[in-house]
Amino acid sequence: MADSKNLPGPLQNIFQLIDQNKTKYISTLGEAVAIRSVSAWPDARDEVVRMVTWTGSKLRELGCKVELQEIGNQTFEDGTVLALPPVIFATLGSDCAKKTLLIYGHLDVQPAKKEDGWDTDPFVLTEVRGQLFGRGSTDDKAPVLGWLHAIECYQALKQDLPVNLKFVLEAMEESGSEGLDDLLRAHEDKFLKGVDLVCISDNYWLGKNKPCLTYGLRGLCYFFLEVEGGIKDLHSGVFGGSVHEPMADLIWLLDQLTGQDGKILVPGIMNDVPEKTPDEQKLYDAIEFSLEDFRSDIGVSQIRFPQSKSKTLMHRWRYPALSIHGIQGAFSDPGAKTVIPRKVIGKFSIRLVPNQTPDQVEKVVQAYIKEKWESRQSPNTMKLKLESGGKPWSANPNHPNYRAASKATEYVYNEVPFMTREGGSIPVTLTLQETTKKNVLLLPMGASDDGAHSQNEKIDIRNYIEGTKVMAAYLYEVGQITESLEEAKE
Amino acid sequence: MADSKNLPGPLQNIFQLIDQNKTKYISTLGEAVAIRSVSAWPDARDEVVRMVTWTGSKLRELGCKVELQEIGNQTFEDGTVLALPPVIFATLGSDCAKKTLLIYGHLDVQPAKKEDGWDTDPFVLTEVRGQLFGRGSTDDKAPVLGWLHAIECYQALKQDLPVNLKFVLEAMEESGSEGLDDLLRAHEDKFLKGVDLVCISDNYWLGKNKPCLTYGLRGLCYFFLEVEGGIKDLHSGVFGGSVHEPMADLIWLLDQLTGQDGKILVPGIMNDVPEKTPDEQKLYDAIEFSLEDFRSDIGVSQIRFPQSKSKTLMHRWRYPALSIHGIQGAFSDPGAKTVIPRKVIGKFSIRLVPNQTPDQVEKVVQAYIKEKWESRQSPNTMKLKLESGGKPWSANPNHPNYRAASKATEYVYNEVPFMTREGGSIPVTLTLQETTKKNVLLLPMGASDDGAHSQNEKIDIRNYIEGTKVMAAYLYEVGQITESLEEAKE
Ligand SMILES: [Zn+2]
Ligand SMILES: [Zn+2]
Ligand SMILES: [Zn+2]
Ligand SMILES: [Zn+2]
Repeated sequence: MADSKNLPGPLQNIFQLIDQNKTKYISTLGEAVAIRSVSAWPDARDEVVRMVTWTGSKLRELGCKVELQEIGNQTFEDGTVLALPPVIFATLGSDCAKKTLLIYGHLDVQPAKKEDGWDTDPFVLTEVRGQLFGRGSTDDKAPVLGWLHAIECYQALKQDLPVNLKFVLEAMEESGSEGLDDLLRAHEDKFLKGVDLVCISDNYWLGKNKPCLTYGLRGLCYFFLEVEGGIKDLHSGVFGGSVHEPMADLIWLLDQLTGQDGKILVPGIMNDVPEKTPDEQKLYDAIEFSLEDFRSDIGVSQIRFPQSKSKTLMHRWRYPALSIHGIQGAFSDPGAKTVIPRKVIGKFSIRLVPNQTPDQVEKVVQAYIKEKWESRQSPNTMKLKLESGGKPWSANPNHPNYRAASKATEYVYNEVPFMTREGGSIPVTLTLQETTKKNVLLLPMGASDDGAHSQNEKIDIRNYIEGTKVMAAYLYEVGQITESLEEAKE
Repeated sequence: MADSKNLPGPLQNIFQLIDQNKTKYISTLGEAVAIRSVSAWPDARDEVVRMVTWTGSKLRELGCKVELQEIGNQTFEDGTVLALPPVIFATLGSDCAKKTLLIYGHLDVQPAKKEDGWDTDPFVLTEVRGQLFGRGSTDDKAPVLGWLHAIECYQALKQDLPVNLKFVLEAMEESGSEGLDDLLRAHEDKFLKGVDLVCISDNYWLGKNKPCLTYGLRGLCYFFLEVEGGIKDLHSGVFGGSVHEPMADLIWLLDQLTGQDGKILVPGIMNDVPEKTPDEQKLYDAIEFSLEDFRSDIGVSQIRFPQSKSKTLMHRWRYPALSIHGIQGAFSDPGAKTVIPRKVIGKFSIRLVPNQTPDQVEKVVQAYIKEKWESRQSPNTMKLKLESGGKPWSANPNHPNYRAASKATEYVYNEVPFMTREGGSIPVTLTLQETTKKNVLLLPMGASDDGAHSQNEKIDIRNYIEGTKVMAAYLYEVGQITESLEEAKE
């Protein structure tokens, strides 16, 4: 795919070598996928640790200084206590003349069982028509290996690595990155010191064919809304009609949250959300995005904004959104049960966007629910609790870090990548921005249909191989940056 | 307790014998409770059948002609197929000069495990301060044994049994009485022919100390309200804000069903509910019922009608009530999951009262939900399905059957029993009324706090022993009835 005309000389050889190594890279990815590093499975903890040591060895072979950081224990709901898998801190090079790039990736994977509906064994990487199926193929084993292969090519071709590298590779990402935040904050002035820019390759293109760079993520406020009546569940035959049912109160409260059109009804919720700027509108207008593909992929008869590409994207990326996820404590099985549940907990969340903060959002939601609840005049008791809160993140998409990645992408795909945001959260992004105080870039390798957390997760061979080239080229372009990269705050 | 002054001679001896046999009766109940006849447990099917044959033997010892009616197979959700336990048809006596009484009871029990929170082994009958704890003690093993003991006393004292008896004893009651309805309807002109009156002892007093006779039960319409969006669950981070979420639609629809005060908002729902009559009001006024005990037993801070005993009882017995039970397909576990469920099914039910019918109620609910849904203008799809419907039942509380039971109760407890209804359904009641076309009486043995389907189910020794006397006296009083008992319809 690369157009060799404009390609800097060193990258020409590297891209050639990457193409030659294709079979080897696929086989290495197969080795990685065969390690069942499911962080959510207590029984698989050995495999998670094996994935860490396997990767550690590969980094040492490349000449990295590798430290395995122990981060304490994990207590499961059933009381089981297991040591958390260690986090890899690795360093390669310390040339004062070069920039220092911090790379983050994760080595653990989501759970997967053949019987969940996989067409192939999830832990046997299987090639079908140019796609590599297997758990962790795209999330996040291929991207991690991409970096290793890129370095290996520089070394094989005896080309000086254009940057100093630091790696943070964890193995608990799919289980809430337990222990990582504390570790990183404790290393703000140690391992993380001297970092000039950060790159995370753990997300996806907006579509299936156009490369992207990602400069924003939404935050999250997850609420538990509890309504409690008596001391026991009641039989609706015996008691129905004679008590105030907590479910009716909860349903009513949940219905106050959004309007018919999906608009959040909480007063003040938009206070900290800036108006969109004309520049921003242009950024969105530039993105190729098929509303019809989007609609038919998720299989709904009509999306919320069927006429507007930019509205649809903005409501996924730069406006808050409220979802009701479910109710705990009520009857949720198939079949019919005539219970009046005594205590029910509604689960809903609001996706946060710049400049919202979990504190501010919690405040307006608490005030609104309190006011509504008082008007309900129910004898039941109500409690609203912010279960977890995470700030939104966005970076400057015109930063040299992004320009380097954009050039690298152009070398490989012959087109300017779309500047995208994502609706979900990757909490480490914010932590790395806060601890390094440097620009963070999200550089996706896989495509939108990779099914990271689904059955039949895959990565296209194209994305794996061309993505490795993008990484190699990005290292080159970071080496070309001449500006100072100091920035206290985006 | 019996006041021997007014007690007919034959009953004096019988009551004495019942008192003498107390220890033996408790030990027989212990044998029955030790048989783990849980109809919901496929693994316990042998025990259910053993309970049937054990009871069949006891009936044969009393001289009954016993037939075990096979009623086919049961298919469980996991595909397991098991033979249904047979239904006992038993006959004792065929004297044309006597009335023929049909007695219904059930031999199976609810599931029970010590670890559910039982203080004692649920299958070891355990006496604690005058109460007998064990699964099935009150529901429905003691009442079934009560009838057997009453007959045995007549025979031991060589007194002619005052009635011809027929028994229908099933062992699938706690699992929806599968197969029973068909069997009974097929026997309308066979085994059920010639029955003059029916008595069911499978319910409870309104309180803990006052005997009751029960003349009404509510019916039930159980609805599944389904809202479906796309073809897969979505991640709220990625999609929240860009789609019409089925949960928001469902929550809104469910909230249209009842008002703040619990009133059902479906137009036409009260069409077939008669105004209460002055006579009826007197019946309610006569009932002793403590609102404060009721409130504190269920542990709510305030009941729906805190000022009115008769309103509270009427809304449990003679007015319809709507309860929302839960939602299938949404997130219902503890913890936080950021899912937008693709298809959610709200479960709600309406308790029916005379003269409502499931057909009529379904009609008005369908019309209302349809109208509301159209006004919502959602692109999602909505389906409302009546999952199951059962008619309400009520009998004439002045019928000779009730007068006989009332006299019998007075002999034993020295007070006129309250005439009560119940909020729940016992579907066989209606089937027996329809197939025999005779008056059906519900004669409770246990008290309101027996905890039929809960942990620590019990029956008070008083209720077991005195209740057996009531049964013996009721047989006597039925024998005294001189009126014709023809009644095509109550
Ligand atoms: Zn990932
Ligand atoms: Zn993931
Ligand atoms: Zn029962
Ligand atoms: Zn029962």
